[in-house]
Amino acid sequence: MSPLSPILVLDSGLGGLTVARAIRAALPHEDLLYFGDTARVPYGNKSPATVTMYVRQIIAYARPYQPKHVVIACNTATALALPALRKEFGDLSISGVIEPGARAAAEAAGKKEFPTIGIIATEATIKSKAYEVAILRRRARARLLTKPTPLLVPIIEEGRLGEDPLVKLALRQYLEPMKQRGIDVLVLGCTHYPILRDAIQGVLGPDVAVVDSAKACAEDVARRLEAGGLLRGDRDEQGDLGCFATDNAPRFGALASRFLGAKISEPTWVPPEDLYRMEFDDAMSGSVRLVDPELEGTTE
Amino acid sequence: MSPLSPILVLDSGLGGLTVARAIRAALPHEDLLYFGDTARVPYGNKSPATVTMYVRQIIAYARPYQPKHVVIACNTATALALPALRKEFGDLSISGVIEPGARAAAEAAGKKEFPTIGIIATEATIKSKAYEVAILRRRARARLLTKPTPLLVPIIEEGRLGEDPLVKLALRQYLEPMKQRGIDVLVLGCTHYPILRDAIQGVLGPDVAVVDSAKACAEDVARRLEAGGLLRGDRDEQGDLGCFATDNAPRFGALASRFLGAKISEPTWVPPEDLYRMEFDDAMSGSVRLVDPELEGTTE
Repeated sequence: MSPLSPILVLDSGLGGLTVARAIRAALPHEDLLYFGDTARVPYGNKSPATVTMYVRQIIAYARPYQPKHVVIACNTATALALPALRKEFGDLSISGVIEPGARAAAEAAGKKEFPTIGIIATEATIKSKAYEVAILRRRARARLLTKPTPLLVPIIEEGRLGEDPLVKLALRQYLEPMKQRGIDVLVLGCTHYPILRDAIQGVLGPDVAVVDSAKACAEDVARRLEAGGLLRGDRDEQGDLGCFATDNAPRFGALASRFLGAKISEPTWVPPEDLYRMEFDDAMSGSVRLVDPELEGTTE
Repeated sequence: MSPLSPILVLDSGLGGLTVARAIRAALPHEDLLYFGDTARVPYGNKSPATVTMYVRQIIAYARPYQPKHVVIACNTATALALPALRKEFGDLSISGVIEPGARAAAEAAGKKEFPTIGIIATEATIKSKAYEVAILRRRARARLLTKPTPLLVPIIEEGRLGEDPLVKLALRQYLEPMKQRGIDVLVLGCTHYPILRDAIQGVLGPDVAVVDSAKACAEDVARRLEAGGLLRGDRDEQGDLGCFATDNAPRFGALASRFLGAKISEPTWVPPEDLYRMEFDDAMSGSVRLVDPELEGTTE
Protein backbone atom coordinates (compact mmCIF):
# COMPACT_ATOMS: atom_id res chain seq x y z
CA MET A 1 0.00 0.00 0.00
CA SER A 2 1.24 3.45 -0.83
CA PRO A 3 -0.24 6.95 -0.55
CA LEU A 4 -0.36 6.87 -4.36
CA SER A 5 -2.82 3.93 -4.38
CA PRO A 6 -6.49 4.59 -5.12
CA ILE A 7 -9.46 4.46 -2.77
CA LEU A 8 -12.06 1.88 -3.79
CA VAL A 9 -15.69 2.98 -3.36
CA LEU A 10 -18.25 0.24 -3.99
CA ASP A 11 -22.03 0.17 -4.11
CA SER A 12 -24.99 -1.83 -5.39
CA GLY A 13 -25.51 0.75 -8.12
CA LEU A 14 -25.47 4.51 -8.46
CA GLY A 15 -26.33 5.74 -4.95
CA GLY A 16 -22.77 5.37 -3.66
CA LEU A 17 -21.73 8.13 -6.04
CA THR A 18 -23.09 10.58 -3.43
CA VAL A 19 -20.37 9.18 -1.15
CA ALA A 20 -17.74 9.36 -3.91
CA ARG A 21 -18.76 12.98 -4.38
CA ALA A 22 -18.24 13.77 -0.68
CA ILE A 23 -14.86 12.01 -0.69
CA ARG A 24 -13.76 13.98 -3.75
CA ALA A 25 -14.82 17.20 -2.03
CA ALA A 26 -12.92 16.32 1.16
CA LEU A 27 -9.88 14.76 -0.54
CA PRO A 28 -9.65 16.29 -4.02
CA HIS A 29 -6.22 14.90 -4.82
CA GLU A 30 -7.01 11.24 -4.22
CA ASP A 31 -7.61 8.80 -7.09
CA LEU A 32 -10.92 6.95 -6.75
CA LEU A 33 -12.20 3.71 -8.22
CA TYR A 34 -15.97 3.36 -8.16
CA PHE A 35 -17.66 -0.03 -8.60
CA GLY A 36 -21.46 -0.14 -9.13
CA ASP A 37 -23.08 -3.60 -9.15
CA THR A 38 -25.81 -2.62 -11.62
CA ALA A 39 -26.44 -6.21 -12.78
CA ARG A 40 -27.66 -7.17 -9.31
CA VAL A 41 -28.99 -3.88 -7.95
CA PRO A 42 -30.79 -3.36 -5.56
CA TYR A 43 -29.31 -5.01 -2.46
CA GLY A 44 -31.99 -3.63 -0.11
CA ASN A 45 -34.45 -6.51 -0.52
CA LYS A 46 -31.87 -9.32 -0.53
CA SER A 47 -30.52 -11.61 2.19
CA PRO A 48 -27.32 -11.13 4.24
CA ALA A 49 -25.69 -14.23 2.70
CA THR A 50 -26.31 -13.05 -0.85
CA VAL A 51 -25.25 -9.44 -0.26
CA THR A 52 -22.08 -10.60 1.52
CA MET A 53 -21.20 -12.82 -1.43
CA TYR A 54 -21.73 -9.96 -3.89
CA VAL A 55 -19.52 -7.54 -1.97
CA ARG A 56 -16.85 -10.21 -1.45
CA GLN A 57 -16.68 -10.72 -5.21
CA ILE A 58 -16.32 -7.00 -5.86
CA ILE A 59 -13.50 -6.57 -3.36
CA ALA A 60 -11.72 -9.65 -4.74
CA TYR A 61 -12.09 -8.28 -8.26
CA ALA A 62 -10.70 -4.85 -7.37
CA ARG A 63 -7.82 -6.13 -5.22
CA PRO A 64 -5.24 -6.16 -8.00
CA TYR A 65 -5.65 -2.37 -8.15
CA GLN A 66 -4.15 -2.35 -4.65
CA PRO A 67 -6.66 0.01 -3.03
CA LYS A 68 -5.23 1.69 0.06
CA HIS A 69 -8.73 1.80 1.50
CA VAL A 70 -12.11 0.26 0.65
CA VAL A 71 -15.35 2.17 1.31
CA ILE A 72 -18.58 0.17 1.29
CA ALA A 73 -20.70 3.12 0.16
CA CYS A 74 -24.02 1.30 0.53
CA ASN A 75 -25.92 1.17 3.78
CA THR A 76 -27.40 -2.27 3.13
CA ALA A 77 -24.01 -3.76 2.26
CA THR A 78 -22.40 -2.09 5.29
CA ALA A 79 -25.12 -3.42 7.58
CA LEU A 80 -25.12 -6.94 6.19
CA ALA A 81 -21.56 -7.60 5.04
CA LEU A 82 -18.94 -5.30 6.60
CA PRO A 83 -18.09 -7.24 9.79
CA ALA A 84 -17.68 -10.57 7.95
CA LEU A 85 -15.62 -9.07 5.10
CA ARG A 86 -13.36 -7.17 7.46
CA LYS A 87 -12.39 -10.49 9.01
CA GLU A 88 -12.06 -12.20 5.67
CA PHE A 89 -9.88 -9.51 4.05
CA GLY A 90 -7.78 -8.97 7.18
CA ASP A 91 -5.01 -7.14 5.33
CA LEU A 92 -7.32 -4.56 3.74
CA SER A 93 -8.54 -1.39 5.39
CA ILE A 94 -12.35 -1.39 4.95
CA SER A 95 -14.97 1.02 6.25
CA GLY A 96 -18.65 1.63 5.71
CA VAL A 97 -21.27 4.34 5.99
CA ILE A 98 -23.18 3.34 9.12
CA GLU A 99 -20.67 4.12 11.90
CA PRO A 100 -19.96 7.59 10.48
CA GLY A 101 -23.70 8.19 10.02
CA ALA A 102 -24.45 7.06 13.56
CA ARG A 103 -21.70 9.32 14.92
CA ALA A 104 -23.10 12.29 13.01
CA ALA A 105 -26.61 11.51 14.30
CA ALA A 106 -25.40 11.31 17.90
CA GLU A 107 -23.63 14.65 17.49
CA ALA A 108 -26.63 16.25 15.82
CA ALA A 109 -28.79 15.27 18.80
CA GLY A 110 -26.74 17.82 20.79
CA LYS A 111 -27.16 18.10 24.53
CA LYS A 112 -30.68 16.71 24.76
CA GLU A 113 -30.75 13.95 27.36
CA PHE A 114 -33.43 11.86 25.68
CA PRO A 115 -33.23 12.73 21.99
CA THR A 116 -35.59 11.09 19.51
CA ILE A 117 -33.79 9.94 16.38
CA GLY A 118 -35.55 8.66 13.28
CA ILE A 119 -33.93 6.35 10.74
CA ILE A 120 -35.17 5.71 7.20
CA ALA A 121 -33.51 3.05 5.03
CA THR A 122 -34.13 -0.05 2.91
CA GLU A 123 -35.98 -3.04 4.27
CA ALA A 124 -32.73 -5.00 4.79
CA THR A 125 -30.88 -2.16 6.55
CA ILE A 126 -33.77 -1.56 8.96
CA LYS A 127 -34.12 -5.26 9.64
CA SER A 128 -30.39 -5.55 10.45
CA LYS A 129 -30.74 -3.00 13.30
CA ALA A 130 -27.19 -1.84 12.47
CA TYR A 131 -28.01 1.87 12.91
CA GLU A 132 -29.85 1.26 16.16
CA VAL A 133 -26.87 -0.59 17.62
CA ALA A 134 -24.38 2.02 16.40
CA ILE A 135 -26.40 4.98 17.70
CA LEU A 136 -27.29 3.44 21.06
CA ARG A 137 -23.61 2.69 21.67
CA ARG A 138 -23.08 6.47 21.62
CA ARG A 139 -26.42 7.68 22.99
CA ALA A 140 -27.84 4.97 25.20
CA ARG A 141 -30.82 7.13 26.16
CA ALA A 142 -31.92 8.00 22.65
CA ARG A 143 -35.37 6.91 21.56
CA LEU A 144 -35.14 5.43 18.08
CA LEU A 145 -37.88 5.28 15.44
CA THR A 146 -37.20 3.28 12.29
CA LYS A 147 -39.09 3.07 9.02
CA PRO A 148 -38.27 1.11 5.87
CA THR A 149 -38.88 3.38 2.87
CA PRO A 150 -38.49 1.08 -0.15
CA LEU A 151 -40.14 3.40 -2.68
CA LEU A 152 -37.56 6.16 -2.37
CA VAL A 153 -34.82 4.45 -4.38
CA PRO A 154 -37.06 3.69 -7.39
CA ILE A 155 -38.58 7.19 -7.11
CA ILE A 156 -35.09 8.73 -7.32
CA GLU A 157 -33.93 6.35 -10.06
CA GLU A 158 -36.98 7.32 -12.12
CA GLY A 159 -35.57 10.86 -12.06
CA ARG A 160 -38.40 12.42 -10.05
CA LEU A 161 -37.69 15.67 -8.22
CA GLY A 162 -38.76 16.98 -4.83
CA GLU A 163 -41.55 19.12 -6.30
CA ASP A 164 -43.34 16.09 -7.81
CA PRO A 165 -46.67 15.59 -5.96
CA LEU A 166 -46.00 11.87 -5.74
CA VAL A 167 -42.62 12.46 -4.10
CA LYS A 168 -44.21 14.83 -1.61
CA LEU A 169 -46.97 12.35 -0.82
CA ALA A 170 -44.53 9.45 -0.36
CA LEU A 171 -42.37 11.55 1.99
CA ARG A 172 -45.42 12.69 3.97
CA GLN A 173 -46.66 9.11 4.31
CA TYR A 174 -43.28 7.86 5.48
CA LEU A 175 -42.27 10.81 7.67
CA GLU A 176 -45.45 12.34 9.19
CA PRO A 177 -45.71 9.67 11.92
CA MET A 178 -42.10 10.37 12.94
CA LYS A 179 -42.69 14.11 12.85
CA GLN A 180 -45.75 13.73 15.08
CA ARG A 181 -43.69 11.80 17.59
CA GLY A 182 -41.29 14.71 17.75
CA ILE A 183 -38.03 13.51 16.24
CA ASP A 184 -35.00 15.74 16.78
CA VAL A 185 -32.81 14.08 14.14
CA LEU A 186 -33.51 12.07 10.97
CA VAL A 187 -30.82 9.77 9.59
CA LEU A 188 -30.90 9.24 5.81
CA GLY A 189 -29.84 5.60 5.94
CA CYS A 190 -29.41 5.07 2.20
CA THR A 191 -26.95 6.76 -0.13
CA HIS A 192 -29.72 7.64 -2.61
CA TYR A 193 -31.72 9.73 -0.18
CA PRO A 194 -29.55 12.91 -0.10
CA ILE A 195 -30.91 13.59 -3.61
CA LEU A 196 -34.27 14.35 -1.92
CA ARG A 197 -32.75 16.12 1.07
CA ASP A 198 -34.50 19.47 0.56
CA ALA A 199 -37.90 17.84 0.09
CA ILE A 200 -37.34 15.75 3.24
CA GLN A 201 -36.36 18.83 5.22
CA GLY A 202 -39.47 20.52 3.84
CA VAL A 203 -41.75 17.82 5.27
CA LEU A 204 -40.01 17.76 8.67
CA GLY A 205 -39.60 21.50 9.09
CA PRO A 206 -36.46 23.43 10.04
CA ASP A 207 -36.17 22.14 13.62
CA VAL A 208 -35.26 18.57 12.68
CA ALA A 209 -31.58 17.94 11.89
CA VAL A 210 -31.32 15.82 8.73
CA VAL A 211 -28.14 13.75 8.74
CA ASP A 212 -26.70 11.94 5.76
CA SER A 213 -23.73 9.66 6.08
CA ALA A 214 -21.91 10.70 2.89
CA LYS A 215 -20.15 13.71 4.42
CA ALA A 216 -19.52 11.91 7.72
CA CYS A 217 -18.16 8.94 5.78
CA ALA A 218 -15.76 11.14 3.80
CA GLU A 219 -14.43 12.68 7.01
CA ASP A 220 -14.01 9.21 8.45
CA VAL A 221 -12.01 8.09 5.38
CA ALA A 222 -9.77 11.16 5.65
CA ARG A 223 -9.13 10.39 9.33
CA ARG A 224 -8.28 6.78 8.58
CA LEU A 225 -5.87 7.65 5.77
CA GLU A 226 -4.19 10.27 7.88
CA ALA A 227 -3.77 7.86 10.80
CA GLY A 228 -2.20 5.32 8.44
CA GLY A 229 0.11 7.87 6.82
CA LEU A 230 -1.64 7.17 3.52
CA LEU A 231 -2.95 10.61 2.56
CA ARG A 232 -1.82 11.60 -0.87
CA GLY A 233 0.25 14.76 -0.96
CA ASP A 234 -1.09 17.79 -2.73
CA ARG A 235 -0.77 17.95 -6.46
CA ASP A 236 -2.00 20.41 -9.03
CA GLU A 237 -4.66 18.35 -10.74
CA GLN A 238 -7.75 16.73 -9.30
CA GLY A 239 -7.54 12.98 -8.67
CA ASP A 240 -8.94 10.50 -11.21
CA LEU A 241 -12.29 8.77 -10.94
CA GLY A 242 -12.41 5.39 -12.73
CA CYS A 243 -15.78 3.62 -12.81
CA PHE A 244 -16.79 -0.03 -13.21
CA ALA A 245 -20.33 -1.35 -13.64
CA THR A 246 -21.60 -4.94 -13.92
CA ASP A 247 -24.38 -4.01 -16.36
CA ASN A 248 -25.60 -1.37 -18.73
CA ALA A 249 -22.54 0.86 -18.67
CA PRO A 250 -24.11 3.49 -20.98
CA ARG A 251 -27.16 3.90 -18.67
CA PHE A 252 -24.78 4.21 -15.72
CA GLY A 253 -22.82 6.91 -17.51
CA ALA A 254 -26.00 8.81 -18.35
CA LEU A 255 -27.50 8.73 -14.83
CA ALA A 256 -24.31 9.12 -12.81
CA SER A 257 -24.01 12.90 -13.04
CA ARG A 258 -27.15 13.39 -10.95
CA PHE A 259 -25.50 11.59 -8.02
CA LEU A 260 -21.95 12.74 -8.54
CA GLY A 261 -22.67 16.34 -9.44
CA ALA A 262 -20.21 16.04 -12.32
CA LYS A 263 -19.96 14.27 -15.66
CA ILE A 264 -18.08 10.99 -15.92
CA SER A 265 -16.88 9.03 -18.89
CA GLU A 266 -18.61 5.71 -19.55
CA PRO A 267 -17.61 3.06 -16.99
CA THR A 268 -15.79 -0.18 -17.75
CA TRP A 269 -18.19 -3.11 -17.99
CA VAL A 270 -17.40 -6.07 -15.71
CA PRO A 271 -19.76 -8.97 -16.55
CA PRO A 272 -20.97 -10.72 -13.38
CA GLU A 273 -19.67 -14.05 -14.68
CA ASP A 274 -16.14 -12.65 -14.36
CA LEU A 275 -16.76 -12.15 -10.65
CA TYR A 276 -17.90 -15.75 -10.24
CA ARG A 277 -15.13 -17.12 -12.42
CA MET A 278 -12.50 -15.56 -10.18
CA GLU A 279 -14.14 -17.10 -7.16
CA PHE A 280 -14.24 -20.57 -8.68
CA ASP A 281 -10.62 -20.28 -9.79
CA ASP A 282 -9.72 -19.39 -6.21
CA ALA A 283 -11.67 -22.32 -4.83
CA MET A 284 -10.03 -24.69 -7.33
CA SER A 285 -6.54 -23.55 -6.48
CA GLY A 286 -7.38 -24.40 -2.87
CA SER A 287 -6.61 -20.99 -1.39
CA VAL A 288 -7.23 -17.31 -1.90
CA ARG A 289 -5.32 -17.01 -5.14
CA LEU A 290 -4.29 -13.50 -6.05
CA VAL A 291 -3.51 -12.19 -9.46
CA ASP A 292 0.13 -11.52 -8.69
CA PRO A 293 1.52 -12.82 -5.38
CA GLU A 294 4.20 -10.12 -5.56
CA LEU A 295 1.55 -7.47 -5.21
CA GLU A 296 0.06 -8.97 -2.12
CA GLY A 297 2.93 -9.27 0.31
CA THR A 298 0.78 -8.60 3.34
CA THR A 299 -1.63 -11.51 2.80
CA GLU A 300 -1.53 -14.11 5.51
CA MET B 1 -40.83 -35.55 -22.97
CA SER B 2 -43.97 -37.11 -21.66
CA PRO B 3 -47.41 -35.78 -20.71
CA LEU B 4 -46.39 -36.58 -17.12
CA SER B 5 -43.48 -34.08 -17.21
CA PRO B 6 -43.87 -30.74 -15.43
CA ILE B 7 -44.29 -27.26 -16.94
CA LEU B 8 -41.48 -24.89 -15.98
CA VAL B 9 -42.59 -21.32 -15.21
CA LEU B 10 -39.73 -18.87 -14.65
CA ASP B 11 -39.59 -15.24 -13.61
CA SER B 12 -37.28 -12.59 -12.16
CA GLY B 13 -39.09 -12.85 -8.84
CA LEU B 14 -42.64 -13.16 -7.62
CA GLY B 15 -44.69 -11.53 -10.40
CA GLY B 16 -44.72 -14.63 -12.59
CA LEU B 17 -46.81 -16.35 -9.95
CA THR B 18 -49.82 -14.52 -11.45
CA VAL B 19 -49.07 -16.52 -14.61
CA ALA B 20 -48.61 -19.76 -12.63
CA ARG B 21 -51.98 -19.05 -11.06
CA ALA B 22 -53.66 -18.68 -14.44
CA ILE B 23 -52.02 -21.88 -15.72
CA ARG B 24 -53.19 -23.78 -12.63
CA ALA B 25 -56.71 -22.48 -13.19
CA ALA B 26 -56.67 -23.49 -16.88
CA LEU B 27 -54.81 -26.77 -16.41
CA PRO B 28 -55.44 -27.93 -12.84
CA HIS B 29 -53.96 -31.39 -13.27
CA GLU B 30 -50.54 -30.31 -14.54
CA ASP B 31 -47.45 -30.31 -12.30
CA LEU B 32 -45.69 -26.94 -12.25
CA LEU B 33 -42.15 -25.93 -11.36
CA TYR B 34 -41.76 -22.22 -10.57
CA PHE B 35 -38.33 -20.55 -10.55
CA GLY B 36 -38.05 -16.99 -9.12
CA ASP B 37 -34.65 -15.27 -9.55
CA THR B 38 -34.97 -13.27 -6.32
CA ALA B 39 -31.19 -12.77 -5.96
CA ARG B 40 -31.09 -10.70 -9.15
CA VAL B 41 -34.60 -9.22 -9.28
CA PRO B 42 -35.66 -6.93 -10.95
CA TYR B 43 -34.85 -7.53 -14.63
CA GLY B 44 -36.72 -4.43 -15.83
CA ASN B 45 -33.79 -2.01 -15.54
CA LYS B 46 -31.10 -4.38 -16.86
CA SER B 47 -29.58 -4.93 -20.30
CA PRO B 48 -30.61 -7.56 -22.90
CA ALA B 49 -27.26 -9.37 -22.61
CA THR B 50 -27.51 -9.68 -18.84
CA VAL B 51 -31.17 -10.72 -18.78
CA THR B 52 -30.54 -13.31 -21.51
CA MET B 53 -27.67 -14.79 -19.50
CA TYR B 54 -29.83 -14.99 -16.36
CA VAL B 55 -32.69 -16.78 -18.13
CA ARG B 56 -30.28 -19.11 -19.93
CA GLN B 57 -28.84 -20.18 -16.59
CA ILE B 58 -32.30 -20.86 -15.14
CA ILE B 59 -33.38 -23.00 -18.09
CA ALA B 60 -30.09 -24.92 -18.00
CA TYR B 61 -30.53 -25.48 -14.26
CA ALA B 62 -34.10 -26.76 -14.61
CA ARG B 63 -33.45 -28.97 -17.65
CA PRO B 64 -32.76 -32.16 -15.69
CA TYR B 65 -36.40 -31.97 -14.51
CA GLN B 66 -37.31 -32.56 -18.17
CA PRO B 67 -39.96 -29.85 -18.48
CA LYS B 68 -42.38 -30.55 -21.32
CA HIS B 69 -42.77 -26.82 -21.79
CA VAL B 70 -41.01 -23.68 -20.51
CA VAL B 71 -42.98 -20.47 -19.87
CA ILE B 72 -40.98 -17.26 -19.54
CA ALA B 73 -43.52 -15.61 -17.24
CA CYS B 74 -41.80 -12.23 -17.19
CA ASN B 75 -42.43 -9.58 -19.81
CA THR B 76 -38.91 -8.15 -19.66
CA ALA B 77 -37.32 -11.58 -20.06
CA THR B 78 -39.71 -12.47 -22.88
CA ALA B 79 -38.95 -9.22 -24.69
CA LEU B 80 -35.18 -9.40 -24.24
CA ALA B 81 -34.32 -13.10 -24.21
CA LEU B 82 -36.99 -15.36 -25.76
CA PRO B 83 -35.92 -15.31 -29.44
CA ALA B 84 -32.25 -16.01 -28.62
CA LEU B 85 -33.03 -18.76 -26.11
CA ARG B 86 -35.50 -20.48 -28.40
CA LYS B 87 -32.68 -20.85 -30.90
CA GLU B 88 -30.20 -21.92 -28.27
CA PHE B 89 -32.43 -24.56 -26.67
CA GLY B 90 -33.78 -25.84 -29.98
CA ASP B 91 -35.14 -29.05 -28.49
CA LEU B 92 -37.20 -27.35 -25.79
CA SER B 93 -40.66 -25.90 -26.25
CA ILE B 94 -40.48 -22.32 -24.90
CA SER B 95 -43.10 -19.58 -24.88
CA GLY B 96 -43.49 -16.17 -23.31
CA VAL B 97 -46.15 -13.69 -22.26
CA ILE B 98 -45.92 -11.05 -24.97
CA GLU B 99 -47.39 -12.84 -28.00
CA PRO B 100 -50.43 -14.03 -26.02
CA GLY B 101 -50.83 -10.55 -24.50
CA ALA B 102 -50.61 -8.91 -27.91
CA ARG B 103 -53.17 -11.33 -29.32
CA ALA B 104 -55.54 -10.58 -26.44
CA ALA B 105 -55.05 -6.83 -26.97
CA ALA B 106 -55.76 -7.13 -30.69
CA GLU B 107 -58.93 -9.09 -29.94
CA ALA B 108 -60.03 -6.66 -27.24
CA ALA B 109 -59.78 -3.80 -29.75
CA GLY B 110 -62.77 -5.43 -31.47
CA LYS B 111 -64.00 -4.12 -34.80
CA LYS B 112 -62.64 -0.60 -34.49
CA GLU B 113 -60.62 0.23 -37.59
CA PHE B 114 -58.12 2.52 -35.88
CA PRO B 115 -58.03 1.39 -32.26
CA THR B 116 -55.80 3.16 -29.76
CA ILE B 117 -53.92 0.70 -27.54
CA GLY B 118 -51.87 1.72 -24.50
CA ILE B 119 -49.04 -0.37 -23.09
CA ILE B 120 -47.53 0.00 -19.62
CA ALA B 121 -44.46 -2.03 -18.65
CA THR B 122 -40.92 -1.80 -17.27
CA GLU B 123 -38.31 0.47 -18.82
CA ALA B 124 -36.60 -2.46 -20.57
CA THR B 125 -39.81 -3.96 -22.00
CA ILE B 126 -40.95 -0.60 -23.39
CA LYS B 127 -37.51 0.06 -24.85
CA SER B 128 -37.52 -3.32 -26.61
CA LYS B 129 -40.69 -2.43 -28.58
CA ALA B 130 -41.65 -6.11 -28.39
CA TYR B 131 -45.34 -5.38 -27.68
CA GLU B 132 -45.53 -2.78 -30.43
CA VAL B 133 -44.15 -5.23 -32.99
CA ALA B 134 -46.42 -8.06 -31.82
CA ILE B 135 -49.57 -5.91 -31.81
CA LEU B 136 -48.89 -4.18 -35.13
CA ARG B 137 -48.40 -7.56 -36.79
CA ARG B 138 -52.05 -8.24 -35.94
CA ARG B 139 -53.52 -4.73 -36.11
CA ALA B 140 -51.42 -2.70 -38.49
CA ARG B 141 -53.70 0.32 -38.13
CA ALA B 142 -53.64 0.50 -34.35
CA ARG B 143 -52.26 3.64 -32.75
CA LEU B 144 -49.95 2.62 -29.89
CA LEU B 145 -49.11 4.64 -26.78
CA THR B 146 -46.40 3.32 -24.49
CA LYS B 147 -45.36 4.37 -21.00
CA PRO B 148 -42.68 2.88 -18.73
CA THR B 149 -44.13 2.64 -15.22
CA PRO B 150 -41.17 1.66 -13.05
CA LEU B 151 -42.76 2.52 -9.69
CA LEU B 152 -45.56 -0.03 -9.96
CA VAL B 153 -43.46 -3.10 -9.15
CA PRO B 154 -41.94 -1.62 -5.96
CA ILE B 155 -45.37 -0.25 -5.00
CA ILE B 156 -46.87 -3.73 -5.29
CA GLU B 157 -43.92 -5.41 -3.59
CA GLU B 158 -44.28 -3.02 -0.66
CA GLY B 159 -47.76 -4.52 -0.21
CA ARG B 160 -49.72 -1.36 -1.03
CA LEU B 161 -53.34 -1.75 -2.10
CA GLY B 162 -55.42 0.05 -4.71
CA GLU B 163 -57.08 2.30 -2.11
CA ASP B 164 -53.74 3.80 -1.01
CA PRO B 165 -53.67 7.49 -2.05
CA LEU B 166 -50.12 7.08 -3.33
CA VAL B 167 -51.14 4.17 -5.55
CA LYS B 168 -54.04 6.21 -6.91
CA LEU B 169 -51.78 9.19 -7.58
CA ALA B 170 -49.13 7.07 -9.32
CA LEU B 171 -51.77 5.44 -11.54
CA ARG B 172 -53.31 8.83 -12.37
CA GLN B 173 -49.90 10.28 -13.25
CA TYR B 174 -49.05 7.33 -15.49
CA LEU B 175 -52.48 6.77 -17.06
CA GLU B 176 -54.27 10.13 -17.33
CA PRO B 177 -52.35 11.18 -20.48
CA MET B 178 -53.35 7.90 -22.16
CA LYS B 179 -56.95 8.27 -21.01
CA GLN B 180 -57.09 11.78 -22.43
CA ARG B 181 -55.88 10.48 -25.76
CA GLY B 182 -58.79 8.07 -25.79
CA ILE B 183 -57.28 4.59 -25.50
CA ASP B 184 -59.62 1.69 -26.19
CA VAL B 185 -57.38 -0.98 -24.67
CA LEU B 186 -54.65 -0.97 -22.02
CA VAL B 187 -52.12 -3.81 -21.95
CA LEU B 188 -50.67 -4.63 -18.51
CA GLY B 189 -47.20 -5.46 -19.77
CA CYS B 190 -45.77 -6.77 -16.52
CA THR B 191 -46.87 -9.80 -14.53
CA HIS B 192 -47.06 -7.75 -11.31
CA TYR B 193 -49.67 -5.33 -12.57
CA PRO B 194 -52.79 -7.55 -12.42
CA ILE B 195 -52.56 -7.12 -8.63
CA LEU B 196 -53.68 -3.49 -9.18
CA ARG B 197 -56.15 -4.31 -11.93
CA ASP B 198 -59.23 -2.89 -10.20
CA ALA B 199 -57.48 0.36 -9.34
CA ILE B 200 -56.24 0.68 -12.92
CA GLN B 201 -59.75 0.07 -14.28
CA GLY B 202 -60.98 2.67 -11.79
CA VAL B 203 -58.67 5.36 -13.23
CA LEU B 204 -59.48 4.50 -16.86
CA GLY B 205 -63.23 4.04 -16.45
CA PRO B 206 -65.39 1.13 -17.64
CA ASP B 207 -65.02 1.78 -21.37
CA VAL B 208 -61.35 0.84 -21.60
CA ALA B 209 -60.58 -2.89 -21.93
CA VAL B 210 -57.76 -3.81 -19.54
CA VAL B 211 -55.81 -6.81 -20.83
CA ASP B 212 -53.34 -8.85 -18.84
CA SER B 213 -51.27 -11.54 -20.43
CA ALA B 214 -51.52 -14.12 -17.62
CA LYS B 215 -54.84 -15.59 -18.76
CA ALA B 216 -53.93 -15.32 -22.46
CA CYS B 217 -50.59 -16.97 -21.71
CA ALA B 218 -52.27 -19.87 -19.91
CA GLU B 219 -54.60 -20.45 -22.88
CA ASP B 220 -51.58 -20.35 -25.18
CA VAL B 221 -49.78 -22.97 -23.07
CA ALA B 222 -52.86 -25.21 -23.11
CA ARG B 223 -53.04 -24.91 -26.91
CA ARG B 224 -49.37 -25.76 -27.31
CA LEU B 225 -49.56 -28.81 -25.05
CA GLU B 226 -52.65 -30.04 -26.81
CA ALA B 227 -51.05 -29.62 -30.24
CA GLY B 228 -48.02 -31.58 -29.03
CA GLY B 229 -50.12 -34.36 -27.47
CA LEU B 230 -48.60 -33.42 -24.12
CA LEU B 231 -51.66 -32.53 -22.05
CA ARG B 232 -51.80 -34.52 -18.87
CA GLY B 233 -54.88 -36.72 -18.54
CA ASP B 234 -57.36 -35.97 -15.82
CA ARG B 235 -56.61 -37.20 -12.36
CA ASP B 236 -58.32 -36.76 -9.05
CA GLU B 237 -55.89 -34.49 -7.27
CA GLN B 238 -54.58 -31.05 -8.26
CA GLY B 239 -51.12 -30.94 -9.82
CA ASP B 240 -48.07 -30.12 -7.68
CA LEU B 241 -46.39 -26.72 -7.55
CA GLY B 242 -42.67 -26.89 -6.65
CA CYS B 243 -40.87 -23.57 -6.19
CA PHE B 244 -37.23 -22.51 -6.44
CA ALA B 245 -35.77 -19.13 -5.49
CA THR B 246 -32.21 -17.80 -5.78
CA ASP B 247 -32.45 -15.74 -2.58
CA ASN B 248 -34.43 -15.27 0.58
CA ALA B 249 -36.65 -18.32 0.31
CA PRO B 250 -38.59 -17.48 3.52
CA ARG B 251 -39.51 -13.99 2.21
CA PHE B 252 -40.58 -15.58 -1.07
CA GLY B 253 -42.78 -18.05 0.78
CA ALA B 254 -44.37 -15.26 2.80
CA LEU B 255 -45.13 -12.94 -0.13
CA ALA B 256 -46.06 -15.55 -2.73
CA SER B 257 -49.68 -16.07 -1.65
CA ARG B 258 -50.61 -12.54 -2.74
CA PHE B 259 -49.61 -13.34 -6.32
CA LEU B 260 -50.65 -16.96 -6.43
CA GLY B 261 -53.90 -16.62 -4.54
CA ALA B 262 -52.96 -19.70 -2.49
CA LYS B 263 -50.42 -20.68 0.14
CA ILE B 264 -47.22 -22.43 -0.89
CA SER B 265 -44.59 -24.25 1.11
CA GLU B 266 -41.17 -22.57 1.34
CA PRO B 267 -39.26 -22.78 -1.95
CA THR B 268 -35.96 -24.58 -2.47
CA TRP B 269 -33.02 -22.18 -2.36
CA VAL B 270 -30.73 -22.25 -5.42
CA PRO B 271 -27.67 -20.04 -4.75
CA PRO B 272 -26.75 -18.02 -7.88
CA GLU B 273 -23.23 -19.44 -7.80
CA ASP B 274 -24.71 -22.85 -8.61
CA LEU B 275 -26.13 -21.36 -11.80
CA TYR B 276 -22.72 -20.00 -12.80
CA ARG B 277 -20.88 -23.14 -11.77
CA MET B 278 -23.00 -25.22 -14.16
CA GLU B 279 -22.23 -22.82 -16.97
CA PHE B 280 -18.48 -22.96 -16.34
CA ASP B 281 -18.55 -26.74 -16.12
CA ASP B 282 -20.29 -26.80 -19.50
CA ALA B 283 -17.75 -24.45 -21.00
CA MET B 284 -14.87 -26.51 -19.64
CA SER B 285 -16.23 -29.74 -21.06
CA GLY B 286 -16.24 -27.98 -24.42
CA SER B 287 -19.91 -28.41 -25.21
CA VAL B 288 -23.34 -28.07 -23.70
CA ARG B 289 -22.90 -30.82 -21.14
CA LEU B 290 -26.12 -32.23 -19.77
CA VAL B 291 -26.62 -33.96 -16.49
CA ASP B 292 -27.54 -37.27 -18.08
CA PRO B 293 -27.08 -37.61 -21.84
CA GLU B 294 -29.69 -40.39 -21.88
CA LEU B 295 -32.34 -37.90 -20.81
CA GLU B 296 -31.59 -35.51 -23.62
CA GLY B 297 -31.86 -37.61 -26.73
CA THR B 298 -33.29 -34.79 -28.80
CA THR B 299 -30.35 -32.40 -28.37
CA GLU B 300 -28.62 -31.59 -31.58
